[in-house]
Amino acid sequence: MRVLYHLPLSPFSRKIRLALAEKKLEFELRLEKTWERREAFLAINPAGDVPVLAEEDGTVFADSWAIAEYLEETVPTPSLHGRDAKERAEVRRLVSWFDRKFNAEVTENLVGEKLMKRQARFGVPDSFAIRAGHANIGYHLAYIAFLCERRNWLAGDHLTLADLAAAAHLSCVDYLGDVPWSAHEETKVWYARVKSRPSFRPLLQDQIPGIPAAPPYADLDF
Amino acid sequence: MRVLYHLPLSPFSRKIRLALAEKKLEFELRLEKTWERREAFLAINPAGDVPVLAEEDGTVFADSWAIAEYLEETVPTPSLHGRDAKERAEVRRLVSWFDRKFNAEVTENLVGEKLMKRQARFGVPDSFAIRAGHANIGYHLAYIAFLCERRNWLAGDHLTLADLAAAAHLSCVDYLGDVPWSAHEETKVWYARVKSRPSFRPLLQDQIPGIPAAPPYADLDF
Repeated sequence: MRVLYHLPLSPFSRKIRLALAEKKLEFELRLEKTWERREAFLAINPAGDVPVLAEEDGTVFADSWAIAEYLEETVPTPSLHGRDAKERAEVRRLVSWFDRKFNAEVTENLVGEKLMKRQARFGVPDSFAIRAGHANIGYHLAYIAFLCERRNWLAGDHLTLADLAAAAHLSCVDYLGDVPWSAHEETKVWYARVKSRPSFRPLLQDQIPGIPAAPPYADLDF
Repeated sequence: MRVLYHLPLSPFSRKIRLALAEKKLEFELRLEKTWERREAFLAINPAGDVPVLAEEDGTVFADSWAIAEYLEETVPTPSLHGRDAKERAEVRRLVSWFDRKFNAEVTENLVGEKLMKRQARFGVPDSFAIRAGHANIGYHLAYIAFLCERRNWLAGDHLTLADLAAAAHLSCVDYLGDVPWSAHEETKVWYARVKSRPSFRPLLQDQIPGIPAAPPYADLDF
C-alpha cells in the first residue's frame, strides 16, 4: 500500500493526509521522527522533512506542495485545486498564505516552540516567539472570516486545498488549545464544517505521548 | 501591458521574471517597496509581498508559486514544469528546495540581513545569521553539483523552473559577491549556462542605489 511518512503535528503532513482522504486514496501512515535524521529516510528525501509519499511501485514524492499537485494531476476527482486557471491561482495563493505566512507567524511560534522543540529536545521554548504567535493568530482568524463572508469556502464555491491547508495549521495550534475561538465566531463556523468531515476524523484521534490534546481538540461541538 | 510588481533582489520576483522571459511574454516591471506597505498594493495583495502579476484585463495574481503554475497552465510552451506528473513532481520538489530551504538557510541570512534590512531600515544586520548563511551555502552548492553530475539540468534533461528558482536565489547572493564559486567548479559551470541565457540579461543590469553589485555579478566569464 501507499505509505505516507509523517509527523502527527506537522501541518504539511496533515494537509496531505486530508487531501488523500478527500480523494478516497488509501494509505498507511508511518511516523518519521525527522530530528533523528535517519539515513534511509534522508536517502529518499535529502531535505529530511515530512510529508513524503511512497507509492506502491516505489516512486517517492517529497514536499507537500509537490505531493498535492501530483495527487491532483493523477487523481483529478474530486478536484481540490479548482476548475480553471484563475480559480487554481486563488487556491494556490491561499495555500501559500497558510503554508508560508501563517506557518511563519503562528504555527512555528506556537507549535514549533511549545511542542516540536520539546519532542526534538532542541532547546527551550522562546517566550518572545510564543507571545508573537498569540499576537499574530487573531489577524489570520479575521482574514479567514473576511473570506468566509464573501465565499462558501475559503477560495470559492467548493472545498479546496486552501481549506485543508488552513485547517491543517489551525488544528495543530488547536491541539495546544491556543486558538481563541470565542472571539472569532465566523471562523469557528467554517472550521467546524471542515472538522466534521470524515477526512478529518483520523487527525482528531492523534495523541502525542506525554503531551495530551487540549480538551476541545477532538470535540465537534467545541 | 502585463505588469510585474517586484523588488530587484527578491529571488521570488526574479524567478517569475525569468519564467516570463523564457516563455517570451512581455511585461513591464514596477518597483514595489514592500516595506512601505502601500495601501493600493495591499488591496491587490494582502500578503504585501512581491511578486504580483497584473494582467492587462485587470486580473491580479499573487504568490510566486501560484504565478508560475498559472503561467505554465496558460502558456504551456516552452514547458518549465516538465512533461509528465513524475517529472513535474521533481521540478516542484526542487523549486521548493530553493524557495524554502535555500531561502531560509542562505538567502535570508545573507541578502535579507545585509541588504533588505538596510533598504527597509529594519535594524542592523545580525552577524550570527550572516555566519550561518556563509556556512550553509557550500552544502547547497554541493547539492547542485550532485544533481548536475547525474542530469543535464537540475530536474532532468531540460531547463525547468527548478533551474530558474535556484539561479534566482544564487544571483541575489552573487550580487553581494557571497558565492564561493572557486570551490564549486561544477556548480559554476551550470550557473554560467543559466546566466548566459537571454532571459537572464535584464537581471544582470539591476543596480540597487547605494549598494553596487560585486564586480563579477554581471560578468558572463566570472
